[in-house]
Amino acid sequence: MSAQPLSFSTGIYVGTFDPLTNGHCDVIERASYLFQSLTVGIGDNVKKKPFFSVKERIAILKSVCTSLNKNISVKSFKGLAVEFAKSEGASVMVRGLRTEADYEFEMQMVMMNKTLCDTIETVFIPTRQELSHISSSLVREVAVMGGDVSKLVPDLVFKKLKEKQA
Amino acid sequence: MSAQPLSFSTGIYVGTFDPLTNGHCDVIERASYLFQSLTVGIGDNVKKKPFFSVKERIAILKSVCTSLNKNISVKSFKGLAVEFAKSEGASVMVRGLRTEADYEFEMQMVMMNKTLCDTIETVFIPTRQELSHISSSLVREVAVMGGDVSKLVPDLVFKKLKEKQA
Amino acid sequence: MSAQPLSFSTGIYVGTFDPLTNGHCDVIERASYLFQSLTVGIGDNVKKKPFFSVKERIAILKSVCTSLNKNISVKSFKGLAVEFAKSEGASVMVRGLRTEADYEFEMQMVMMNKTLCDTIETVFIPTRQELSHISSSLVREVAVMGGDVSKLVPDLVFKKLKEKQA
Amino acid sequence: MSAQPLSFSTGIYVGTFDPLTNGHCDVIERASYLFQSLTVGIGDNVKKKPFFSVKERIAILKSVCTSLNKNISVKSFKGLAVEFAKSEGASVMVRGLRTEADYEFEMQMVMMNKTLCDTIETVFIPTRQELSHISSSLVREVAVMGGDVSKLVPDLVFKKLKEKQA
Amino acid sequence: MSAQPLSFSTGIYVGTFDPLTNGHCDVIERASYLFQSLTVGIGDNVKKKPFFSVKERIAILKSVCTSLNKNISVKSFKGLAVEFAKSEGASVMVRGLRTEADYEFEMQMVMMNKTLCDTIETVFIPTRQELSHISSSLVREVAVMGGDVSKLVPDLVFKKLKEKQA
Amino acid sequence: MSAQPLSFSTGIYVGTFDPLTNGHCDVIERASYLFQSLTVGIGDNVKKKPFFSVKERIAILKSVCTSLNKNISVKSFKGLAVEFAKSEGASVMVRGLRTEADYEFEMQMVMMNKTLCDTIETVFIPTRQELSHISSSLVREVAVMGGDVSKLVPDLVFKKLKEKQA
Repeated sequence: MSAQPLSFSTGIYVGTFDPLTNGHCDVIERASYLFQSLTVGIGDNVKKKPFFSVKERIAILKSVCTSLNKNISVKSFKGLAVEFAKSEGASVMVRGLRTEADYEFEMQMVMMNKTLCDTIETVFIPTRQELSHISSSLVREVAVMGGDVSKLVPDLVFKKLKEKQA
Repeated sequence: MSAQPLSFSTGIYVGTFDPLTNGHCDVIERASYLFQSLTVGIGDNVKKKPFFSVKERIAILKSVCTSLNKNISVKSFKGLAVEFAKSEGASVMVRGLRTEADYEFEMQMVMMNKTLCDTIETVFIPTRQELSHISSSLVREVAVMGGDVSKLVPDLVFKKLKEKQA
Repeated sequence: MSAQPLSFSTGIYVGTFDPLTNGHCDVIERASYLFQSLTVGIGDNVKKKPFFSVKERIAILKSVCTSLNKNISVKSFKGLAVEFAKSEGASVMVRGLRTEADYEFEMQMVMMNKTLCDTIETVFIPTRQELSHISSSLVREVAVMGGDVSKLVPDLVFKKLKEKQA
Repeated sequence: MSAQPLSFSTGIYVGTFDPLTNGHCDVIERASYLFQSLTVGIGDNVKKKPFFSVKERIAILKSVCTSLNKNISVKSFKGLAVEFAKSEGASVMVRGLRTEADYEFEMQMVMMNKTLCDTIETVFIPTRQELSHISSSLVREVAVMGGDVSKLVPDLVFKKLKEKQA
Repeated sequence: MSAQPLSFSTGIYVGTFDPLTNGHCDVIERASYLFQSLTVGIGDNVKKKPFFSVKERIAILKSVCTSLNKNISVKSFKGLAVEFAKSEGASVMVRGLRTEADYEFEMQMVMMNKTLCDTIETVFIPTRQELSHISSSLVREVAVMGGDVSKLVPDLVFKKLKEKQA
Repeated sequence: MSAQPLSFSTGIYVGTFDPLTNGHCDVIERASYLFQSLTVGIGDNVKKKPFFSVKERIAILKSVCTSLNKNISVKSFKGLAVEFAKSEGASVMVRGLRTEADYEFEMQMVMMNKTLCDTIETVFIPTRQELSHISSSLVREVAVMGGDVSKLVPDLVFKKLKEKQA
């Protein structure tokens, strides 16, 4: 077991948020009460072409997170999440757990992150059941086919999705 | 989402601990760094006849937890875990996640606890892979059949298990 | 594939209903619209000592089902569910699916029932997410420990649970 | 629970059917006995390049379904399945369940569909165990590598797959 | 990784076999071709009252295994399976895999056995799909309720089950 | 059950090995003790553009396998694994099992392979827990983002990954 006490003053929550969903917001808000400050990191994956650009996603998350809690900051990052966490001085990564399939993937990430950086802890926050079916990819797919996703994403995201399709 | 900020100064970790395993110790130690104080609650289920009495389990956990961190207190409780948490002024329950089967059971408990008490949050701490096969019931079963469980439980528990069998 | 068309006029839904939960009621109501008539069968397992007697459960289910739909009849049965289905002239068994663990158990039952009686079909109705954590055994356990299960069971069951505990 | 009785005269079963497998045929035939009429909807996803064109798939399904039952009609659709169901006057969607992984994905679709359209019900029909390993993508992959898929698909599909490869 | 080559001349397959099922026979026969000799070990658990006595089970397995392959010997054992394996000079344990739930339990046993005895390997043989729903406990339960289990167990077991019930 | 005894002198272990990981090496070494000779088959999938070419992968595996055991030969193959196994005179395919998700996919492959070729058996070797999070795709992804994968792959692979990125 780790020999020296960790400092949990800063938590980190990373994702692609393409787009931000009500499920993400639920985890962000609840996580924000766990730490003195919470950094939300938007993964800037150069390989995948995103639906919303990193710039658009930063603007959306900054706007929405302001209304969730005061101690949340939003940044984008390139590369490994553990490196981003270290650069932020964060020792705890927060992950949402939606489904059993999530669980298995997440456990692999926990183990991989432990291999890459032994000083980062991970805590899971269970997504509320009524939000557990909302993945960003499903929201995107439904929105593109004309489905009404207004109950699944923050108002701002809904507005931006409509602009994108127009 | 919850209207008023929760206070996370006190965390709670409940279980039967019959017996305490190295997996439990891993969760307890890591959880202790998440909170100003952590209460470990030993469930005193009047229906099931335990292997170690509540009194024995309290003594074991008090002794072992002292060596894990200074901010841990150990108590037994009867009845519902959420009621115990409320009586302790704790707003966050910590649960360890060992396996995918655990996950499903735990999610049901999270939902049930939310139904019983809306102000309690749950966070999961993933058990380290090399400890994930250690359940109290399996340890007990192996010990009774004469298997060497010295790598699976704290020294004190190993000693008490041997006394029990003698 | 089956050579002759099956008649789906009668459906059957079996369980122990010890006690009846809001999850059961959801499945019963939705299933009742699938068939001209739906028979709810209460398993009378001589081996297990029930919480509510068969007689009590019949009374509860008759009372509650009346308010769900007009085409529901309630009966108890001993022995195999497929034999009960055959004696009722039912060719479709309805099962609720709550969780992934349910799924695996249910698939084993489907296969076993096919082995025992090739003319019975099974259809699954997914339990609504917000009811998926309500199993009879968990409700019973929580009620016994003094937890408020009023949101988890019909009013009549709640009243009977309180009488039982008094 | 829904206030007014639903009418289950028409059922709907959607998929990509690229290609139609014996597993699909099993579900279609068994579902056809559940309803007065069953509509099989072939998803025409403009984004993905299919192996068989929508036109080819319509021809295959029309030909094969005729031999399964008389009350089956075959159509293609664009966009959301729930919108297609509504336009067909269908209130019940039928889904096949092959594996546990299927289950989790399907439950997310059920929840999403409920969000998009509250009046559509979903019932699951368990695929027969000996057909549960047959997914369209695996059949396609094996056929392309020269494997004999004659036991996995209807004769007409087998013939068309051979034509495609020649 | 293990420094010295293991000798796989003897394999071991343990279980309670209460009763022996066609699923067990499938694994035993296929495992018998993997090794020069295969020992089938019948667990003699003093805590649980069995349906068939150890003596009865030995007689049944000896009779049935003779017809499966010539290199199979049948023995009962008390205590830990790894200790039995060592006493038999076996370095490989064979396990059948029926379902995903099996898998998780089996992985815990593999890890526990590695902890108890580092020189024992485990290999899994997947149960044939059409036998995957046959667990001893389900067979017993169905037989007791009068269900026809003749397709699920060897003829000798079926005969003995009938004698037991008479 | 199969009428004639199978000969298990040759085992086969196939994969893409893009790249070879410590998890693969663990399975290869342990499998090599199960058979008189073990053939490792590198899938040469013309559809997917690999990270390492087939030629590079053959060189890597030949070099690494030499140090694992003497009875291992390395070949590449095109098309179906069962056809490759037959052409090698192998009657047993070895598969590693890392996670529960693996399990479901693997069972589908077992069933498909049985459909394609009835004389091939499959045995599973459970991956050691501390290696279970290492998939080739995750290793590749982490390496590309600059993560240190030296603990996850053989030294030679680590060296080649660095050369690739330079």
